[in-house]
Amino acid sequence: MVKLNPHFKELKREYIYPIIDQKLAELKKGHPGVKILNFGVGDIALPLAPSIAKAIICGVEEMTTEEGMRGYGPHNGYPFLREAIVKNEFSKLGIDADEIFVSDGTNSDTVNILDLFNLSSVVGVTNPTYPAYLDSTIISGRKKILLFPCTAENHFAPQPPKEHCDLIYLCSPSNPTGVAMDRDALQKWVDYARREQSLLLMDSAYEAFIRSPDVPRTIFELPGAKECAIEFRSFSKSAGFTGLRCAYAVLPKSVKAQLGRKTLSLHPYWDRRQATKFNGVAYPIQRGAEAVYTQEGRAETGAQVALYLEQARRLKEGIKKCGFMCYGGMDSPFIWWKTPDGQSSWEFFDTLLKKFQLLCVPGRGFGEYGEGYVRLSAFTKPEITTLALERLHQG
Amino acid sequence: MVKLNPHFKELKREYIYPIIDQKLAELKKGHPGVKILNFGVGDIALPLAPSIAKAIICGVEEMTTEEGMRGYGPHNGYPFLREAIVKNEFSKLGIDADEIFVSDGTNSDTVNILDLFNLSSVVGVTNPTYPAYLDSTIISGRKKILLFPCTAENHFAPQPPKEHCDLIYLCSPSNPTGVAMDRDALQKWVDYARREQSLLLMDSAYEAFIRSPDVPRTIFELPGAKECAIEFRSFSKSAGFTGLRCAYAVLPKSVKAQLGRKTLSLHPYWDRRQATKFNGVAYPIQRGAEAVYTQEGRAETGAQVALYLEQARRLKEGIKKCGFMCYGGMDSPFIWWKTPDGQSSWEFFDTLLKKFQLLCVPGRGFGEYGEGYVRLSAFTKPEITTLALERLHQG
Repeated sequence: MVKLNPHFKELKREYIYPIIDQKLAELKKGHPGVKILNFGVGDIALPLAPSIAKAIICGVEEMTTEEGMRGYGPHNGYPFLREAIVKNEFSKLGIDADEIFVSDGTNSDTVNILDLFNLSSVVGVTNPTYPAYLDSTIISGRKKILLFPCTAENHFAPQPPKEHCDLIYLCSPSNPTGVAMDRDALQKWVDYARREQSLLLMDSAYEAFIRSPDVPRTIFELPGAKECAIEFRSFSKSAGFTGLRCAYAVLPKSVKAQLGRKTLSLHPYWDRRQATKFNGVAYPIQRGAEAVYTQEGRAETGAQVALYLEQARRLKEGIKKCGFMCYGGMDSPFIWWKTPDGQSSWEFFDTLLKKFQLLCVPGRGFGEYGEGYVRLSAFTKPEITTLALERLHQG
Repeated sequence: MVKLNPHFKELKREYIYPIIDQKLAELKKGHPGVKILNFGVGDIALPLAPSIAKAIICGVEEMTTEEGMRGYGPHNGYPFLREAIVKNEFSKLGIDADEIFVSDGTNSDTVNILDLFNLSSVVGVTNPTYPAYLDSTIISGRKKILLFPCTAENHFAPQPPKEHCDLIYLCSPSNPTGVAMDRDALQKWVDYARREQSLLLMDSAYEAFIRSPDVPRTIFELPGAKECAIEFRSFSKSAGFTGLRCAYAVLPKSVKAQLGRKTLSLHPYWDRRQATKFNGVAYPIQRGAEAVYTQEGRAETGAQVALYLEQARRLKEGIKKCGFMCYGGMDSPFIWWKTPDGQSSWEFFDTLLKKFQLLCVPGRGFGEYGEGYVRLSAFTKPEITTLALERLHQG
């Protein structure tokens, strides 16, 4: 009989979302009229910006005409979008449009990139972190995995390790801790990667939330990064595209890897991988992404990000006023809330849900070092923030 | 230094599209005003059906409202689409909506499915065939690969082998040969898979083109198939979605695989794989796919498929009248044209391009048994067919 990939058995992480759903269903059953305040799954809460909708609709209408019809697009994205990205996100950083690979999501990109590397690669992963990195590394059959604890002690920004790693997943601003690495912290990783000839897999999905001047907006601002980093970015959170699916990877041609005795640019291999296993993003969606860079698009999506950041600020302040410890929420939509009195993630999750009807995500869902925390997502509306803070203050 | 996946070196297939592009550019340079008739890449030629465009636009407009906004959708597709698919494609076949996995393309699905299996799996692939199956199998590091020649002698429908295979890629109606397996031919593969406890990976992307009554529209019409087959289907060619990206896999819960000593349903593993590595298809695109099943949607997309089929019929007839041998083009948009006088694929490609300004794809791009053929795609408009036939008849 056909044999399953045995590495699925090695997935140890508790798969928390079904448990959350069950707990939620139980509460609703016991208290039918209850208003749950959702700070759980980090999903957008505001409608699609009108200028983006308009651009998508234009794209769809074009496709109904003889002159405007479009079939398969370039697997790496249309030049109009790749060029808009370079111009607006990487101007003066020397990134070329053909170093941008448009895709259906940063989730896909950060895990698909593993296809390019030897199975013996040593993979470093921060912990807690977005679960797909570790799960995909395990499913791929890689055994040498180093975890870098992100704790209050190291301000949730771990130092590079003493050991050698081939591939290192970093996420800044971090999901789930909401903490962003500043220039110095990130430069240490770039220096490490240059020294060790490793590759940094930099998830920058929350880059649009950065406000602190000492936090770089892209890793490619740092000297040396173009030799040792791939950056993953998304329109999901910066422009409300979670339900539309458009993201991109930035892979400079100067990033190298070894094949036999040869040292080769990684760029054509990612291109070949994508050409073989992926067929590009819907044309109208790419038109929508392009519209993010128009004057209206910037204004509308910028206002959304600002609104979410304001909710993060209010929530963090309110939580602290109630005597709790929490982190993040400054260059990020996430608040990393220390459970009080040594409660476990799940215990505090239950408390927040039952006592305040407030839905969060238990930190342990992001790895063992997430135990003792819960994550709050500030993708929410002001009135929900107000309600949550009222409930918390009333105790 | 980080090491590349060494299996990229084993990709032997000539990567033909850059070569085609180069030859095309040369011709255009030498003959600036020339009108090329494109029967190359199998991409749609007609604009998007109005009813589908309307449904997509409605979906986008919904997303701009408070009530209709949508973030992340279910990774396996919205229930409205999964239910519409079951109702319209698999009625009375006992397939459940949760056995449908909506995705961004059959290309992605047919190669991503490999993640589920042991690297020691023996993989069988017809030859010539859609190149992604073999290339992805090679990239994944699998070494035991059996090729099943599809030749004029076996009417391009190979018999099951004597050897054991774990996974078998089938494509019917076939890309590139344009030949569809009839019930008897397909049943032999189902019986083989049941006997050998193998799994059939059935690419049915061209199912909408089937007209012959003895060719099943889905493998699940055949007794036993629900225990040994996954079917991959797409809106790409049936409804002009190549530029929109929406497809689905049908994975019955009764399909089993082995993990250690246990025999387990494959279904939750594909679900877990998709939940980990994929984030679903854009909401408005799914609304567009749903609209394929409305009365207008059926009429409009049905007319497009009929028009393409008519071009295939005319082309095949015309080519034969000129004294050539060719196959397919009946339940399929593809014509598999035998090169005359022992010419190689590339020689005949050059002849067709230089003499008739007619663009095809050399058969060897689909594997070694494609040598000696070229593929013509009948995704074209009547006036292009007419021009092509005129040029051919004038010789």
